[in-house]
Amino acid sequence: MFDTVAIVGVGLIGGSFGLALKKAGFTGRILGVSSAPALEAALARGAIDEGLPLEEAVPRADLVYLSQPIHRILETIERLDPLLRPGALVSDAGSTKARIVEQGRRSIRRGQFLGGHPMAGKETRGAAEADAGLFSGRTYVLTPSDPAELETAAAREFLRWLTAIGAVPVTLGPAGHDRIVACTSHLPQLLSTALAAMLGERLAAPDDLRVAGPGLADMTRLAASPYEVWGDILDTNRATIEAALDACIAELSSLRNALGAQGAQEVFQRANQFAARLRQHRQT
Amino acid sequence: MFDTVAIVGVGLIGGSFGLALKKAGFTGRILGVSSAPALEAALARGAIDEGLPLEEAVPRADLVYLSQPIHRILETIERLDPLLRPGALVSDAGSTKARIVEQGRRSIRRGQFLGGHPMAGKETRGAAEADAGLFSGRTYVLTPSDPAELETAAAREFLRWLTAIGAVPVTLGPAGHDRIVACTSHLPQLLSTALAAMLGERLAAPDDLRVAGPGLADMTRLAASPYEVWGDILDTNRATIEAALDACIAELSSLRNALGAQGAQEVFQRANQFAARLRQHRQT
Repeated sequence: MFDTVAIVGVGLIGGSFGLALKKAGFTGRILGVSSAPALEAALARGAIDEGLPLEEAVPRADLVYLSQPIHRILETIERLDPLLRPGALVSDAGSTKARIVEQGRRSIRRGQFLGGHPMAGKETRGAAEADAGLFSGRTYVLTPSDPAELETAAAREFLRWLTAIGAVPVTLGPAGHDRIVACTSHLPQLLSTALAAMLGERLAAPDDLRVAGPGLADMTRLAASPYEVWGDILDTNRATIEAALDACIAELSSLRNALGAQGAQEVFQRANQFAARLRQHRQT
Repeated sequence: MFDTVAIVGVGLIGGSFGLALKKAGFTGRILGVSSAPALEAALARGAIDEGLPLEEAVPRADLVYLSQPIHRILETIERLDPLLRPGALVSDAGSTKARIVEQGRRSIRRGQFLGGHPMAGKETRGAAEADAGLFSGRTYVLTPSDPAELETAAAREFLRWLTAIGAVPVTLGPAGHDRIVACTSHLPQLLSTALAAMLGERLAAPDDLRVAGPGLADMTRLAASPYEVWGDILDTNRATIEAALDACIAELSSLRNALGAQGAQEVFQRANQFAARLRQHRQT
């Protein structure tokens, strides 16, 4: 049984995890490890019970939940093992998994590391925006190196809590996860970013935007995402993203060369099929 | 004064134009020229008063409104002049303008041709979906070859009706219009199409979509658009679209080569600026 949870990095995800646990009936203690302003916001929001330094929080915790930026997660994992209570579970909420899971396997000995990625977010950030319903109905990917890792008592309890907060757990290998999100998340982000950056130069006159419709708004919504969030993702999944980008540039180039010809119609038909499949999936 | 309007091609746009005119107080006669099922739907919806062949409708009309697909508009314009009442205004709602305006200048002698492009639409099509409020608050581009074309009595009256139905008229040259919509509309469409077509192959397993979030839905919404609509647009604005696509592929390639480096941050910053500018514009 988890009596004490330490949330390391109490921003939107970490704060929401704390609130969601409480709402789902968790009656143990929730410790927060973060900067002073983040701890203050999380305490005010009721997402944590107490703010502590890492060295004091981790030895008390049955579950250590790392919801920092990816590079901070990698740094924290390196420092964690000597502080851990034997048998404690360490999980994380980083958006790429291969590097983090590898680091966890190498560094965590006294406890168990199990990587995770909640497919949840908001356009806003920070614990002040934390929301007990953030994970509800959303996929929560778990990335064990070996499926047997899900069968320990601690992993089973973690899974029960994920289900209790409304998340929909899905298991993928770390590399498989990174290959899929390169397509479903990282590539769409980079397309939106490149489109917006290019249009910023081509549509420089204030009046040019009068002719913009809702389609352009859809296609540039992700372009508002900050590099602070994306730098780590691009850095830790670089080779996979490069391969996905190359495939997309090849598709675009062949579409460009087929404009007005039969080939363009064939690309539209494949696109129609995928769009219909995605829409159907999202409705089920 | 327009006493009789002929709407040629009574689909979503043509039907909505008829409904909008009536709602704005037009008490003259609205004739429809279309296929039998389209006329039936438009009559049932109250968008037109009477369905007629082109040869009978056009000689009675003060305003001939062409809301067909682009290639059909080009064909209609060629047949129109001998049928026109002297001094009648011919306008159209085609999504590309250079080819249509050139055809209008060459063919229309007895009346006046003034190209237009209402930035309005829906995911659905057909007169059954027609909506008197479709143009309300939306930009309506007019593309005279010479600004003096807007000063004729017929053009002024057309402009008054556009304002009366809630549209926001904007004047652009035909080539300028096509260059801007290549960026704001055609390029986003092709990016969405290429992304979805490519993902259809990379994410072929049913379970792969469990990891898809709202960003992917945004980026592939346009990918559901049918080639029937886009074939004509790509064909009549091909060189301009190719240039925009080349610039976008170049931006994507340079972003791909800068992943994890300073250059990527700079592209994100430019994208952030454009996204903020577009968002601000849409709120004003």
